[in-house]
Amino acid sequence: MLQMDRAALAAFLAAEFPQAADFAVETAGAEGVVLRLRVGERHLRPGGTVSGPAMFGLADVAFYLAIQARIGPVALAVTTNASMDFMRKPAAGCDLLAEARLLKLGRLLAVGDVLIRSEGLADPVARAGMTYAIPPRGAR
Amino acid sequence: MLQMDRAALAAFLAAEFPQAADFAVETAGAEGVVLRLRVGERHLRPGGTVSGPAMFGLADVAFYLAIQARIGPVALAVTTNASMDFMRKPAAGCDLLAEARLLKLGRLLAVGDVLIRSEGLADPVARAGMTYAIPPRGAR
Amino acid sequence: MLQMDRAALAAFLAAEFPQAADFAVETAGAEGVVLRLRVGERHLRPGGTVSGPAMFGLADVAFYLAIQARIGPVALAVTTNASMDFMRKPAAGCDLLAEARLLKLGRLLAVGDVLIRSEGLADPVARAGMTYAIPPRGAR
Amino acid sequence: MLQMDRAALAAFLAAEFPQAADFAVETAGAEGVVLRLRVGERHLRPGGTVSGPAMFGLADVAFYLAIQARIGPVALAVTTNASMDFMRKPAAGCDLLAEARLLKLGRLLAVGDVLIRSEGLADPVARAGMTYAIPPRGAR
Repeated sequence: MLQMDRAALAAFLAAEFPQAADFAVETAGAEGVVLRLRVGERHLRPGGTVSGPAMFGLADVAFYLAIQARIGPVALAVTTNASMDFMRKPAAGCDLLAEARLLKLGRLLAVGDVLIRSEGLADPVARAGMTYAIPPRGAR
Repeated sequence: MLQMDRAALAAFLAAEFPQAADFAVETAGAEGVVLRLRVGERHLRPGGTVSGPAMFGLADVAFYLAIQARIGPVALAVTTNASMDFMRKPAAGCDLLAEARLLKLGRLLAVGDVLIRSEGLADPVARAGMTYAIPPRGAR
Repeated sequence: MLQMDRAALAAFLAAEFPQAADFAVETAGAEGVVLRLRVGERHLRPGGTVSGPAMFGLADVAFYLAIQARIGPVALAVTTNASMDFMRKPAAGCDLLAEARLLKLGRLLAVGDVLIRSEGLADPVARAGMTYAIPPRGAR
Repeated sequence: MLQMDRAALAAFLAAEFPQAADFAVETAGAEGVVLRLRVGERHLRPGGTVSGPAMFGLADVAFYLAIQARIGPVALAVTTNASMDFMRKPAAGCDLLAEARLLKLGRLLAVGDVLIRSEGLADPVARAGMTYAIPPRGAR
């Protein structure tokens, strides 16, 4: 059921994403992926907390990789919906870990969720429901 | 940490909700609650599938009870946001089980998610991100 | 561009929806539909306010009709995502009016939003972002 | 009802936001704000389309300014929920215009929506429902 493992996803990320160096694939399986955001200056907003767009980007890439793990490198899948709750300030000076979970992999839509935590802390920082449209098989 | 257990939640539900007979509290803990929807004629739409509003109501009540389990019977908590993904048709003739998970219990907002499955099946039917506003302590 | 006008939508609603008597189509055009919920006892929760599931159902049916207005009576379109914000208590003893707006009508997905107001009041009670999956042309 | 006009918002943005140069406040009123994203290389993903995080950031800042317009420069307001639908590819080589609309300005929560279009085109590229938590008056 797994088309791409951790190493294959890491290679895909490095080849396709300009900001690939910001991310590290921690684990990859049929149920989902854990992705690290190596938090740096450009992800912070004044006060030192990780910005909303940086967390959105983390959730989006994590879920995208969870889909690739199952169907292989389909560069054309696109986000159609992202519903995100921001719950707590990320801990200062910590990386973020996003746990993406694939709940449905249909022919046309992939649906799931993502939970983001500061590394080493149990309380989640943010959560997201994600939907991606998958290009029809002939168009991939 | 647990203010109300399964029996207390069931009693609360029976006292406060006109449609209490539709629901049964399966489990209740500090992390969340599992709530059953006893699917009947009035929850179905033509074709025999459970209606969207019935699933919305199930997610909403399940998350509400997950909050009560932790803070006690606060009748005035209100839903402020619900973001729901409908993934699969519920299985015909089956009850639905909603697993509500409390991810943040703040002073003013409670945030979490709910996963709904047809009883006995692993693939989820729907998921929801939920936010409730909690009345300030003096107003409860 | 309009496949069904107000009268056609009303007839469709009456034929297909068990609770059709709860609703009245106020206006219908290419951009969207205004749908009335005739608020009755069964839509209320204790305290006299309209329940969340009743508002969800109103938003869902209003957006569904906005799609039908444009593509004709496609009974198989299904809700895939609904993200709803509840902002104010509906006024007691008032009908609700839902203004559904179609923002995208693609081959596979229809996306838009719904604004719900108590009749005669300007401040919205709730809003929703809605996505429907539309069955492929051959399957309709 | 308007605490900050277009010029005041532009000055606030320039003072508080590191990426202020990316944005321009087009209009500002009691109902909302129109914000331009000056699309540049760093907002694009491979293929030349504006990235999801860049659109998220645009919606987030636009809605934040719509709140400031009404209550003045409250630097501590934070996003609690963002539910975003991505509907169309932005037109290549075009700025994006985000129309943020404040639907509720409560004591604790501000709720509204944002519609994003490519400049000069009618069809929306994305929409978002947004909720911000507003710090209590004493804490501002």
